[in-house]
Amino acid sequence: MNDIQEVKDTLATKPQHLTDSVHVFAPATVANVVCGFDVLGFAVNEPGDEVIMRLTNKPGITISKITGDEGRLPLNPAKNTVSVSVEHYLKSIDRTDIGVDIELHKKMPIGSGLGSSSASTVAGLFAIKTLLGDDTDPSTLLPFAMKGEEMACGHGHADNVAPALLGGFVLIRSYEPLDVVRLPHPENLWCAIVFPDVDVPTREARQIIRNKINMKDAVTQWGNIAGLVSGLFMQDIDLIGRSMKDILVEPVRSMLIPDFYEMRQMAMDMGAVSFGISGSGPSVFAFTRDEETAKLITNKLRNHLTGIKIGSYGYVSTINDAGPRVMC
Amino acid sequence: MNDIQEVKDTLATKPQHLTDSVHVFAPATVANVVCGFDVLGFAVNEPGDEVIMRLTNKPGITISKITGDEGRLPLNPAKNTVSVSVEHYLKSIDRTDIGVDIELHKKMPIGSGLGSSSASTVAGLFAIKTLLGDDTDPSTLLPFAMKGEEMACGHGHADNVAPALLGGFVLIRSYEPLDVVRLPHPENLWCAIVFPDVDVPTREARQIIRNKINMKDAVTQWGNIAGLVSGLFMQDIDLIGRSMKDILVEPVRSMLIPDFYEMRQMAMDMGAVSFGISGSGPSVFAFTRDEETAKLITNKLRNHLTGIKIGSYGYVSTINDAGPRVMC
Repeated sequence: MNDIQEVKDTLATKPQHLTDSVHVFAPATVANVVCGFDVLGFAVNEPGDEVIMRLTNKPGITISKITGDEGRLPLNPAKNTVSVSVEHYLKSIDRTDIGVDIELHKKMPIGSGLGSSSASTVAGLFAIKTLLGDDTDPSTLLPFAMKGEEMACGHGHADNVAPALLGGFVLIRSYEPLDVVRLPHPENLWCAIVFPDVDVPTREARQIIRNKINMKDAVTQWGNIAGLVSGLFMQDIDLIGRSMKDILVEPVRSMLIPDFYEMRQMAMDMGAVSFGISGSGPSVFAFTRDEETAKLITNKLRNHLTGIKIGSYGYVSTINDAGPRVMC
Repeated sequence: MNDIQEVKDTLATKPQHLTDSVHVFAPATVANVVCGFDVLGFAVNEPGDEVIMRLTNKPGITISKITGDEGRLPLNPAKNTVSVSVEHYLKSIDRTDIGVDIELHKKMPIGSGLGSSSASTVAGLFAIKTLLGDDTDPSTLLPFAMKGEEMACGHGHADNVAPALLGGFVLIRSYEPLDVVRLPHPENLWCAIVFPDVDVPTREARQIIRNKINMKDAVTQWGNIAGLVSGLFMQDIDLIGRSMKDILVEPVRSMLIPDFYEMRQMAMDMGAVSFGISGSGPSVFAFTRDEETAKLITNKLRNHLTGIKIGSYGYVSTINDAGPRVMC
């Protein structure tokens, strides 16, 4: 983790800005990863959000356009997580003299459990970092992204923003102090994602989780997370699959997802390595060993949802190791 | 994990026995490893128990001698964990026609939290395996060793027997079905162990642990175990140290250990990577980056215990990757 002073020092030796506008993509993320509640997450290549940011002559932040949000996100820069995070960043490096305008293009559904707000926030922060020529490690931006997450979800968790920002598979070992570890993963791990278009607000999905749990169940859970982490390092897809079990959160949250267990059975029968809830849901995901199986599972689950009169979105992707990127 | 049928098949093609007697060493083990309650353990080179086993002409198992136990262990083969485990193994491979006599030489204190009963049981099982020329993977013996553990401690846990049998650092990912994963570790990781000679029965040490815990604390704990496993794979000793924290079990069990927090402070001040309770205690251990620091810590803690009129034993070792071995 780099210190913000390093960012200031870096910027002090740079031209004021290298370019006047930038177009950034930041990825959707799958948090929890079944057995890693609140501490694990990974980024995918599709979907993701886009931010176009332009320097302006007037200090302060404006949002001129938001698309793909069905009118659900505020244009008021004091209330939008993207602008608020960017403002925090600019304040921390004493650059409130700067003016920027933001266009936010949502390319994924809001409230999907795919880290929608994180993708937008990370895209915004990566855009301002790029505009200013700040080439320190992106992890410097993590505390600002977490501020945005706090505003969007009511808690400053990092299991979406960290993988969105750093790419790949990420462990949040600790929050105080923040300690983030990037984990390896097998290259041939594919991810099938299906978002059933029902409403599961993150706050509510969190509230239904029990505060007190059995020590015995916790032991089962940490045996599994240790197994998953080992499987990632060992590139052992069987071990990854055996370890991705959740006896604490999934039994509760799955109730908010239509035909969760039926969908799991279908995915596993079709050769999925594992299946579970993405973040707080309602999106579900399956790991597979190849693209073809991931595509077949996505189609099968979407057809099933259509059959019970629920609309859906589907995505097929490998794990995105790059994190946010400049599109042009 | 090999099937017992494989053992039978292997033995069917072998001579009846290759040797008439064998002398085996099996290592002490540190279970839990601070943040891996009931699922992690590692073996050390010192101390360890020894078994001398001889084939006899009369079917059945006898125990002719036990040394180093201060008269605490039963010579009755129906009540001794070593003979009971060996009997289970012989029954499972349909070889109750065999007769063996056991000498057990305890080389570590009983009730120390160093896997004393596991070391004896594993030594016995490895001895009979060797006598019979069974060269299948030692993991075949794990269920029999767990039977012995169940008899000794009232529960069939594997976090001592698995590392004693397999050597190295071991994760018990799951008990049902049994799923054991061997983890790597940095080569230059040293272990200082001190056993304060006070009585902490394993059963009681287990009973004082709370049955219900806060989800929030469980999340902290599984962030740490994931961090420890990552650190082991990454050979990142700093990460190993940062991750070895236990907010659930240590605060309770440390009350049974004289001056636990004072000893921890001393060890950390002297450069320990981490410090904690070995198994259910009262032994404590510290990881260090070199032998010298481990020796200094062991001496310092033992002197401190002497100062408060408590006898102690001290050991300095690297991690034992071999597990049990034939001595002659």
